[in-house]
Amino acid sequence: MIAFTADDHRRRMERATAAAADAGLSGLLIAPGPDLSYLTGYQPVAISERLTLLVLAAGREPTMIVPRPERPDAEGAPVRLVDWADGTDPYEATAPLLGRSGRYGISDSAWAMHLLGLQQALTSVSYVSLTKALPMLRAVKDAHEIDRLAAAGAAADKAYLEILKVRFAGRKESEVAADLAALLTRFGHSQVDFTVVGSGPNGANPHHGAGDRTIDQGDMVVLDFGGLVDGYGSDTTRTVHVGPQRPTDEMRKVHDIVRHAQQTAFEAVCPGATCQEIDRVARKVIAEAGFGEYFIHRVGHGIGLTTHEPPYMVEGEAQRLVPGMCFSIEPGIYLPDRFGVRIEDIVTVTETGGRRLNTTPHELATVD
Amino acid sequence: MIAFTADDHRRRMERATAAAADAGLSGLLIAPGPDLSYLTGYQPVAISERLTLLVLAAGREPTMIVPRPERPDAEGAPVRLVDWADGTDPYEATAPLLGRSGRYGISDSAWAMHLLGLQQALTSVSYVSLTKALPMLRAVKDAHEIDRLAAAGAAADKAYLEILKVRFAGRKESEVAADLAALLTRFGHSQVDFTVVGSGPNGANPHHGAGDRTIDQGDMVVLDFGGLVDGYGSDTTRTVHVGPQRPTDEMRKVHDIVRHAQQTAFEAVCPGATCQEIDRVARKVIAEAGFGEYFIHRVGHGIGLTTHEPPYMVEGEAQRLVPGMCFSIEPGIYLPDRFGVRIEDIVTVTETGGRRLNTTPHELATVD
Repeated sequence: MIAFTADDHRRRMERATAAAADAGLSGLLIAPGPDLSYLTGYQPVAISERLTLLVLAAGREPTMIVPRPERPDAEGAPVRLVDWADGTDPYEATAPLLGRSGRYGISDSAWAMHLLGLQQALTSVSYVSLTKALPMLRAVKDAHEIDRLAAAGAAADKAYLEILKVRFAGRKESEVAADLAALLTRFGHSQVDFTVVGSGPNGANPHHGAGDRTIDQGDMVVLDFGGLVDGYGSDTTRTVHVGPQRPTDEMRKVHDIVRHAQQTAFEAVCPGATCQEIDRVARKVIAEAGFGEYFIHRVGHGIGLTTHEPPYMVEGEAQRLVPGMCFSIEPGIYLPDRFGVRIEDIVTVTETGGRRLNTTPHELATVD
Repeated sequence: MIAFTADDHRRRMERATAAAADAGLSGLLIAPGPDLSYLTGYQPVAISERLTLLVLAAGREPTMIVPRPERPDAEGAPVRLVDWADGTDPYEATAPLLGRSGRYGISDSAWAMHLLGLQQALTSVSYVSLTKALPMLRAVKDAHEIDRLAAAGAAADKAYLEILKVRFAGRKESEVAADLAALLTRFGHSQVDFTVVGSGPNGANPHHGAGDRTIDQGDMVVLDFGGLVDGYGSDTTRTVHVGPQRPTDEMRKVHDIVRHAQQTAFEAVCPGATCQEIDRVARKVIAEAGFGEYFIHRVGHGIGLTTHEPPYMVEGEAQRLVPGMCFSIEPGIYLPDRFGVRIEDIVTVTETGGRRLNTTPHELATVD
């Protein structure tokens, strides 16, 4: 993988600063996490109660407030550093960088404690979350980023093809989840974020993790897993059936509907389509098949340095798709106390349509 | 280990609600993370942009706002649930739980995005961070919690005694760090939070992690490591010397000063002493030895469900120690471009003084 350089980060900061000005903001306040990593390449060893904050404002040098003990680690970032010592007020140290008034975009996941500290130190400055002000700051991936997402997707796909070979019946969900985690790691994941194994009725809870339930013959099992490879996320879902008996007609019918919804939404991806249209077309397929009330979540979320980020494919999101955006398409049907089906691929927007970054078969696979 | 029960969590919520009222607050807003885990036992699978928030207010039933897809997971928490669906405004759903006015304490690490959403939905409600309003909410541990912290400390101590047996000279810091991580896991850690291996000049950066530097004979090496065992944290530091030659007089002198500072601060621990006194007595030892300018951080931090939390042993913290509080005592001396020394134990306050939860020798050990 090609490493991102200080110049890459400088260009990203310039673009972000310009976008903030275009949006009528005085600047941006970037907290540790994916935003800071994206813009500067810097990741503190831990995100803690000690304030670290990058201040970007037009016409001023990018400047990062850091706790004094962490200054040596931060030296590599292509920004000016201002440190503050334990026992002093970090918000007072930050205030001069912001000016007496203005409106700043702030990282979604900045700590409320820090926002309250700034609000108290600077009463005439106002704030808006980055997702609200500049939701697409990291949404359009460049070619190197898409390469990384594709590599992450390929690694997750390998894990799926291998998990089809393990024993399901008679083992606990948590054991299959551990197998999945080991496979993700084996195929290059530095971090495993989730390994959902939702068997039988547990599959009807879209956020079930993996529990003590023993998987049984005849179960449907939702497998939703992902993590980070070289800093970029993977996230894919397939629903399998545990043999040896054949799935019931209802299981096959529900699986076919979800598969059709996923395909239809994928085919709707093209530059200029809105995010909510992607949600709507999937939802329409499921509703027309009579299962609308059992599709209880949005159809997708962006992915990049994190496994959940803008753009969100959800009703109300009028953002138009742009080449380079990357997100999941993951419709599902959840029949309470019975079973669930979900199929998910990561998709990137091309000049003419969409390209899947997960390419394992959508057909209902049977496992042992 | 004894599991915490719904009754434990109900009692904690009652105590927190009463403490909030005593502090003049209308109630508490608890975000996913250690606060929510402590009060309800509930941990969402992931902390995401989707709002989950526990509202505690005197005279009202504890109520948690959850994303609809996560509702089944949250059912186990001993609270009333109110869910919100994708595409609706979670802050509008939360507003009726707060009332039209008042002042709420909010979890430090709640997302700024969520705080801004609440501030917009409820313009006459104000907020204060939990660390500011009720810093000691989780600071006084009960006997079961101290048992868990002691077990975590014992596991970290076993890792230290084992790491003394591995080869240091000629290997990279990152290799020794990987050994440390494996040892922590072997001795019961479910999660490794940090494995600092700061050799030679890298030891002079207190927040150095572990890098590509090859450890050399004659180096001083700071080893600072910890993570979670059964949900509770470990955190200990020892500084070792790489043989076969003897450490220099200066190395031994600096190590002795730090050891003396650690011991003096430990002996100052007793109910009624202030947090800043613990910092001051350690700092005084180091300053009087002529190294005051090289001790560049506070002397300690609380530990529990996280490895960094109140109470902080820092100048300006007038909080008095109470039996059951648990925190690190970790003075250090950092000689830029040369070497560093730090010695850290977790200590819990007893009725009469302090008890160390790390018990490995403080003497300067020699490694190969």
